[in-house]
Amino acid sequence: MANNSYAAMKKGGKLESHSIETGRLADADVEVTVSHCGICHSDVHLIDNDWGISSYPLIPGHEVIGSVSAVGKDVKNLKLGQRVGIGWQSASCQNCEWCKEGLENLCAAGQPTCVGRAGGFADKVRADAKFAFAIPDELPSAEAAPLLCAGITVFTPLNDYNAGPGTRLGVVSIGGLGHLAVQFGRALGCEVTAFSTSPSKRSEAAAFGAKRFVDMNDADAMATAANSQDLILTTASADLKWDALVGALRPQGVLCLLGVPQGQVSIAAFPLLAGAKKVVGSNTGSRATIEKMLAFAAKHRVHPQIQKYPMSKVNDAIDTVRDKSVRYRAVLEA
Amino acid sequence: MANNSYAAMKKGGKLESHSIETGRLADADVEVTVSHCGICHSDVHLIDNDWGISSYPLIPGHEVIGSVSAVGKDVKNLKLGQRVGIGWQSASCQNCEWCKEGLENLCAAGQPTCVGRAGGFADKVRADAKFAFAIPDELPSAEAAPLLCAGITVFTPLNDYNAGPGTRLGVVSIGGLGHLAVQFGRALGCEVTAFSTSPSKRSEAAAFGAKRFVDMNDADAMATAANSQDLILTTASADLKWDALVGALRPQGVLCLLGVPQGQVSIAAFPLLAGAKKVVGSNTGSRATIEKMLAFAAKHRVHPQIQKYPMSKVNDAIDTVRDKSVRYRAVLEA
Repeated sequence: MANNSYAAMKKGGKLESHSIETGRLADADVEVTVSHCGICHSDVHLIDNDWGISSYPLIPGHEVIGSVSAVGKDVKNLKLGQRVGIGWQSASCQNCEWCKEGLENLCAAGQPTCVGRAGGFADKVRADAKFAFAIPDELPSAEAAPLLCAGITVFTPLNDYNAGPGTRLGVVSIGGLGHLAVQFGRALGCEVTAFSTSPSKRSEAAAFGAKRFVDMNDADAMATAANSQDLILTTASADLKWDALVGALRPQGVLCLLGVPQGQVSIAAFPLLAGAKKVVGSNTGSRATIEKMLAFAAKHRVHPQIQKYPMSKVNDAIDTVRDKSVRYRAVLEA
Repeated sequence: MANNSYAAMKKGGKLESHSIETGRLADADVEVTVSHCGICHSDVHLIDNDWGISSYPLIPGHEVIGSVSAVGKDVKNLKLGQRVGIGWQSASCQNCEWCKEGLENLCAAGQPTCVGRAGGFADKVRADAKFAFAIPDELPSAEAAPLLCAGITVFTPLNDYNAGPGTRLGVVSIGGLGHLAVQFGRALGCEVTAFSTSPSKRSEAAAFGAKRFVDMNDADAMATAANSQDLILTTASADLKWDALVGALRPQGVLCLLGVPQGQVSIAAFPLLAGAKKVVGSNTGSRATIEKMLAFAAKHRVHPQIQKYPMSKVNDAIDTVRDKSVRYRAVLEA
């Protein structure tokens, strides 16, 4: 069978129409006819081979919503025609200690949807059926798409670090991930503070549920925010003022990196020790956490704010992600 | 009453005999006649004002063992003549959220024993009686002294991060703290690996309970250690190869800083995110954890290896801490 997609033929290239033969569907796999696919900043990193893991032609796209159009013979959990979503991960080994513990996102043999596989900027995409998730009826498809990567990326640390009523949650950068982190945090009962270098986002951050706004370029505002947060999620792919962010943590506070800055993360040790603070990374989420996140988003009306583009305008859409003008997530429609 | 001590009269100075008037004993305080006091690398940092918190004359010493020689009128938990120990902290506010939660070591108004107070290089030392701990009979006084700071500093993260049977524990630097971390780890059932830049410490690390030894200057050995540890405690006050240590962590692993390096801690973000790893600090320990540690050390025969010096030879003893020749902890005797 043929699969029609948009692919980068070389590092940093514009996407071009591309057709591949997909062959027989594996017994454990499902084929999904794509209705929508979000664009994540990671897609841009992959197109540009920023992480040294890309191969070309590269078909990006890992925030897929679509309907099941074929199932392998061993697939029991999904039916033809069912609406599903696929995120960053499309397969894992199923036998390592992490898979056994239900932490497939940490499997060393995990297969990202668009690294060494064909991603979702296409008419069809395939994945191990264990990594295709039923989408709750309450969630419209276009808005559900960004939940599959941006949503789970911010939800996992909220879940892992027990964010709940009264948690003082800081969200750094109000973009594709950040505007969802604020909404999830508010729905969880957190006291949310938005940290941003764009004062123009103050009112929008408030609308998403932030009670406070800190302009990160304002040294006085940052000084006032010292020792104030239990958990800070950094959602920007940018080099940040790390010591100031550690300073904004309360004792035992957690600074969780979700965006990948270009430079090294440089931290003074003394405040980390004195306050028993933590600087941690988080990596998308497990299958169980993805299902928990989707149910939570449906129940609490977490609402990705998106700009839709037809799939054929994929390069225009990518440009809005590259130049950070998108408010707040670009979603391609078939 | 007079208190005879050894004090640094200026930054970096040799210690000199010094006498102070101590006045009336506060109602909540206890006075301890010092029999032994360990020397911690933090004492050297304080003498040198490396952390900018020292005032002079400065009387170091925060690994005190002695007997109760006076009690304030409100003291109920200690009796005259009782053997007790005093560590890094001598008082806290008792009313902040951290004190209420039993995490007095995180109290912003906590009073270190030898910062703004008179420490244990003296014939007598005073503390809030809540911070003087009964010493189990099994522990000889000279060997118990280092447990009050070095011991609790390494025990707290083992406790907080649930080190136990099968935990793959890395201990960086086999010195005053490190040789205790190896012993506590072994007694907890951990698989202990010693990381050191001194190949000469291989056999001693094994004797303390390390199953493996990694020469940190050997790139091949470090490469072999990649992805191997659940918890790594860095016990050196040195700038380390942070990315290599993060690389030595397994997914979800914790790199816990206990020594204060001079420079910034510089970490690549990508491995932190991909493996959901953590870089954290830890700060001595709470009252409850100190008592737990002392009982554990007594039961499992954790055995600080010490060099004894008469109090009058305090400057000779400090020199062995400064030049790192001490094996493994210097302890002053009254």
